[in-house]
Amino acid sequence: MPELRLNLITKEWVIISTERAKRPEDFKTRRERKALPEIVDTCPFCPGNESKTPGEIFRISDDGGWKLRVVPNKFAALNRETEKIRLNDGYKHSITGFGFHDVLIETPVHNMPIALLPLNHVTDIIRAYKRRFIELYSDTRIGHVIIFKNHGEGAGTSLEHPHSQIVGTPVTPFQIRSRLEEAIRFFDITGECMVCKTMSEEKKDGTRIILETNHFLTFNPYASLSPFHTSIFPKRHFATFSEITDDEISDLALNLRATLAKFYFGLDNPDFNFVIRSNRPKDTTSEFFHWYISIVPRLTMSAGFELGSGMFINTALPEESAEFLRKVEAPEQP
Amino acid sequence: MPELRLNLITKEWVIISTERAKRPEDFKTRRERKALPEIVDTCPFCPGNESKTPGEIFRISDDGGWKLRVVPNKFAALNRETEKIRLNDGYKHSITGFGFHDVLIETPVHNMPIALLPLNHVTDIIRAYKRRFIELYSDTRIGHVIIFKNHGEGAGTSLEHPHSQIVGTPVTPFQIRSRLEEAIRFFDITGECMVCKTMSEEKKDGTRIILETNHFLTFNPYASLSPFHTSIFPKRHFATFSEITDDEISDLALNLRATLAKFYFGLDNPDFNFVIRSNRPKDTTSEFFHWYISIVPRLTMSAGFELGSGMFINTALPEESAEFLRKVEAPEQP
Repeated sequence: MPELRLNLITKEWVIISTERAKRPEDFKTRRERKALPEIVDTCPFCPGNESKTPGEIFRISDDGGWKLRVVPNKFAALNRETEKIRLNDGYKHSITGFGFHDVLIETPVHNMPIALLPLNHVTDIIRAYKRRFIELYSDTRIGHVIIFKNHGEGAGTSLEHPHSQIVGTPVTPFQIRSRLEEAIRFFDITGECMVCKTMSEEKKDGTRIILETNHFLTFNPYASLSPFHTSIFPKRHFATFSEITDDEISDLALNLRATLAKFYFGLDNPDFNFVIRSNRPKDTTSEFFHWYISIVPRLTMSAGFELGSGMFINTALPEESAEFLRKVEAPEQP
Repeated sequence: MPELRLNLITKEWVIISTERAKRPEDFKTRRERKALPEIVDTCPFCPGNESKTPGEIFRISDDGGWKLRVVPNKFAALNRETEKIRLNDGYKHSITGFGFHDVLIETPVHNMPIALLPLNHVTDIIRAYKRRFIELYSDTRIGHVIIFKNHGEGAGTSLEHPHSQIVGTPVTPFQIRSRLEEAIRFFDITGECMVCKTMSEEKKDGTRIILETNHFLTFNPYASLSPFHTSIFPKRHFATFSEITDDEISDLALNLRATLAKFYFGLDNPDFNFVIRSNRPKDTTSEFFHWYISIVPRLTMSAGFELGSGMFINTALPEESAEFLRKVEAPEQP
């Protein structure tokens, strides 16, 4: 029997549709996990091709090479050199395309996913996220910074070589503001942070927990938008990713890699997006907001219903997805 | 140079990114337009297979057969027999999956798109939309009715045979309510309907108009979310699709078919979704709202950036898309 569940963060109803439901193992992509080639001649992100990505912002070096590089996106959606100009012309409101669009090349190895990287390497990636997050916000023309990753063609990436993106927009997106408002409303009524509250209830319930580390809790939300939609919540209440401590970064590396390894081994390396949802540094609304990570495997498609209503139909039961992921055991890694 | 434009209806910024821009003709799918087979043995929507779709709600008959049929979706996301029960259990808010999920089989011919149907047939489809729209809302347990169409695999449909869907949910989606609130805010400030205002400004500007019929205006919005994102606005101010007149239905059939024919011939039958965005009948907010149709061809993918921000990156300039579509000439049809 289908059921509608309210997603407290988006305030949107999700239809959990059991009529269309598949078993968790039916979502496996059955993708062959290829042997990893080290270098691809035509790949702009492979070692030896560094000149194809001009204007390196920084790199973290390794014995005899680099471990990761941050470069401007060659096909940037926004331009860091442009002046930011607001125009209001009748019903037309526009801003020149000022902004930042970085690419973080996560590893020199052409198709080495985060799921298989050494732990200290994942730590370096998160450290680099933090550094650029703070640097982009230090430009006062920036309204919002989004850190995200597209893994696989089905998740919207054209380049196989593992990379993340960091975009600083000259505006605060309406969606971000709308969710912040909802978080404030929740606080006004209950006196509690919505994320802290969700976390304590999910822990009490237990059926949707995937894994827990010292500082982070990973689970499939009660009103997951799509099959295996996963949240990673920091246990400590803090609104902005810029305040993550070294200790928390190491723990997040452990948690994120373990979560992605469960996808990689349990669902055969599915396409996915992840995104860090964070308030900006030094925001006065920090009492109400709490940053977190969303991971959305692209195992089903959204269509006219989602477009027309903003609601999602999830064809998997979050409790079953979580139970499946809990049981996936990834090989030991350094 | 990229530019951000504000979508007044969603209140979300869209990045029009010229760095990534393609010419309109580069979006052609280059899909071969197959000769139309009349019947496919395994298709549940083809004539002769009517027993595969039990519980026909109604049909419109033609000489010696049917022209269209409305049936319950065999894999319905919601269940019309279920009792509607609201449960609030701590942070878990749920409703049993009561609701309607109809399929409108648009034609007996297995792959005859609306773009190629005779005009009176398209009129019958819109008439059937209106009938079910009113019937579903006559059940007071229904919060919202969404009429939509998924055309092609890339738009989320698994069945090739042309069909639309009509879903009645037991809730009003947050997105719908949020847009209604924004429309009311706009009215409070300006004393105008946002849709009427947009329409008059678009007509004055002219660069994004695709076509105009007696009662409807078709254009690529100033802040189109994606390449060839198209709106069809009724010229008369009325909030709900249930109040469309016979005269307007005939004109919408003409407009919708002409618009979809421009996609079919100009972009080689691309995958697309369309949706009717309407207020409910007898709503007291009808002064502020104005129903319309959105058509979204699926020519690009949304990824982590869209997921994480709610903003879209459009790689096509709406003015160029509109100019391209304006010039597409479809063959004369009955």
